[in-house]
Amino acid sequence: MLIVKKFGGSSVADKECIFRVAERCAEDYKNGHDVIVVLSAMGDTTDDLIAKAKEINLNPSKREMDMLLTTGEQISVSLMAMAFHKLGIPAVSLNAFQVKMHSTSTYGNARFKKVESERILHELGYRKIVIVTGFQGVNKYEDYATMGRGGSDTTAVAIAAALGADACEIYTDVDGVYTADPRIVPSARKLKEISYDEMQELASMGANVLHNRSVEMAKKYGVQLVVRSSMNREEGTVVKEVVKVEKLLISGVASDKNTARISVIGIEDKPGTAFKIFNTLAKKNINVDIILQSVGRDGTKDISFTVAEDDLQDTLAILEENKEALTIQEINSQESVAKISIVGAGMMSNPGVAAKMFEALTNARVNIHMISTSEVRITVLINESDVERAINAVHERFGLGE
Amino acid sequence: MLIVKKFGGSSVADKECIFRVAERCAEDYKNGHDVIVVLSAMGDTTDDLIAKAKEINLNPSKREMDMLLTTGEQISVSLMAMAFHKLGIPAVSLNAFQVKMHSTSTYGNARFKKVESERILHELGYRKIVIVTGFQGVNKYEDYATMGRGGSDTTAVAIAAALGADACEIYTDVDGVYTADPRIVPSARKLKEISYDEMQELASMGANVLHNRSVEMAKKYGVQLVVRSSMNREEGTVVKEVVKVEKLLISGVASDKNTARISVIGIEDKPGTAFKIFNTLAKKNINVDIILQSVGRDGTKDISFTVAEDDLQDTLAILEENKEALTIQEINSQESVAKISIVGAGMMSNPGVAAKMFEALTNARVNIHMISTSEVRITVLINESDVERAINAVHERFGLGE
Repeated sequence: MLIVKKFGGSSVADKECIFRVAERCAEDYKNGHDVIVVLSAMGDTTDDLIAKAKEINLNPSKREMDMLLTTGEQISVSLMAMAFHKLGIPAVSLNAFQVKMHSTSTYGNARFKKVESERILHELGYRKIVIVTGFQGVNKYEDYATMGRGGSDTTAVAIAAALGADACEIYTDVDGVYTADPRIVPSARKLKEISYDEMQELASMGANVLHNRSVEMAKKYGVQLVVRSSMNREEGTVVKEVVKVEKLLISGVASDKNTARISVIGIEDKPGTAFKIFNTLAKKNINVDIILQSVGRDGTKDISFTVAEDDLQDTLAILEENKEALTIQEINSQESVAKISIVGAGMMSNPGVAAKMFEALTNARVNIHMISTSEVRITVLINESDVERAINAVHERFGLGE
Repeated sequence: MLIVKKFGGSSVADKECIFRVAERCAEDYKNGHDVIVVLSAMGDTTDDLIAKAKEINLNPSKREMDMLLTTGEQISVSLMAMAFHKLGIPAVSLNAFQVKMHSTSTYGNARFKKVESERILHELGYRKIVIVTGFQGVNKYEDYATMGRGGSDTTAVAIAAALGADACEIYTDVDGVYTADPRIVPSARKLKEISYDEMQELASMGANVLHNRSVEMAKKYGVQLVVRSSMNREEGTVVKEVVKVEKLLISGVASDKNTARISVIGIEDKPGTAFKIFNTLAKKNINVDIILQSVGRDGTKDISFTVAEDDLQDTLAILEENKEALTIQEINSQESVAKISIVGAGMMSNPGVAAKMFEALTNARVNIHMISTSEVRITVLINESDVERAINAVHERFGLGE
């Protein structure tokens, strides 16, 4: 079997962690499997590097930021190779230039276009464990471009897809996908299986178990994922196409505090004004999430939308700069908001799920600012201070702990 | 003018240093010159990374060590680019993969084979300052291979040669080449000019101002070097082909404590035994320096030689492993030895220079273990504890401070 195993930053935070990972991978290797290990940067390395950059330049170029951050994974993989050698196992570390992980151009938020298999296969041919830097690609300018936070998951899936791996295991600090964050909801239950669609909605709604794009790519290329813990031997959660119905309306509740709301007020009520606003933001690589449009005074309209909290200042600056062209009279924003989402393939065929959720929130005295839905998800925007109460109320109302 | 400027690790050790370098380079840029900056890793980064590696594996693979160490320069160059941006100057950082700095294969001790100019020229064409990682090349396996300590000097010269730069300035923590280390010999005098040959002998004999190979390469491609300080505006020392005679017999005294002596005793006295020993070491990339052969007892011979102190343990292990094949009866070694060298083009035509040196050392009660000479150099091996006294005695005897 060809197995891709991805370990996050906390799994390789120090010497002990590194050897724990190495020994775990060594088992598969000794059982005759071919093993590819994908690693993130050690512990707080990425944050430390960001702090270093901000010391020099509060608004560093994204291109140079990627040049800086990619050193983090290169350190992890070379140290991991040394750990394997110490255990007497042949191993080699490779960065994105060496593997040739072609990505799109957008620095800090790239996507993989094509992953070449030649170098990895060459090294596997010598019965080496191949350790690949996660998170990073090389774009058409031959520059490093990173995948954004959590992008190492996507690296693992991209490599599994390119090499037709038999398994792709994502190791994290939790031992699977839960019906809700166990730190917030004590009765949260681990799921044995979840479909790509549900996982994707959960991931993009703040369940920090898997990177959203990794699930999207896994679905596209039919890579079966297993999410499990690097700290124990629990079985974890399988993410795959068809899931046997667990008789659950919804499979989980997720929250995302990395959200801010922006309202642009008094814009001209004529066709194209909303498009112009979101097009301007899209050009600057700002991802807009929930959007709500309402009628304003004097024939104008108001639009509210959410962005990631990290993007709030950039977004405000862009809107301010284009205020006149976008016919905006007033801009206001709120940082202390959060999203709560329920996800489940079952809700498609069950009317009344939304009503049930809103009822639970109302009973818990949680105020809803905005609502957004997809076929398998309902998301509401609430005050950050209400998150814990809201999640628990919804989790209980849908009987997810049972 | 196209100017290559190289700054060592202490010149980019922290935020203040980085901006000092950026501002200095910005002057040339604003005067209309094209500027390429070559950087080493910041301050103690390389040592810190080595310590990290040794924590994992006391004998790390050189290939993985290079993978690890090259992150140091990548951090320097990306932060430097951010500093230039902060000053409002367009700049871009490049690593060895991006520049395509082809090197030989030997990890940890590679040499440049070919440096491509396309990417650098492309970036200069946009009037950007180009910042290149020193110390690193990419070998035929598409792996990082480093040039050994101080290799960033060689990177600067290789780039200057490849692009036909008009000037190549090496910035260090001293303001030029001295007749001796001013920390040891207070009366040491800065040289205005020195020839490639003399500089090369000084460099390889422990004057830590310039990397030996960088001088060799500068001579080969006729790149004129200037050695100066990053801390002040002193003129520095020019290293070039022809130097006007300064009426000095010798131009400098250098010492090198990174030396160990090994003696192999009782080897068979027949043709080829010495060759076998040094061939065995050469195959393992051990550089042997001074060699002394003497007659032993019972028709055997003894050979003593010096290696870099870092290589001592490796060398002893190799000799021990091949003891029988090499007909060695006994091996002993000494770590606390040092080399003292005098260098000068003038000594070729002046007999008695060696005698004068030995006399000075004898008067200073310094015991000489071994002697080695070239056309422009005389080196003696002495006890490490005698270095200071020896250098001062020789420096004074030749009137170098006058």
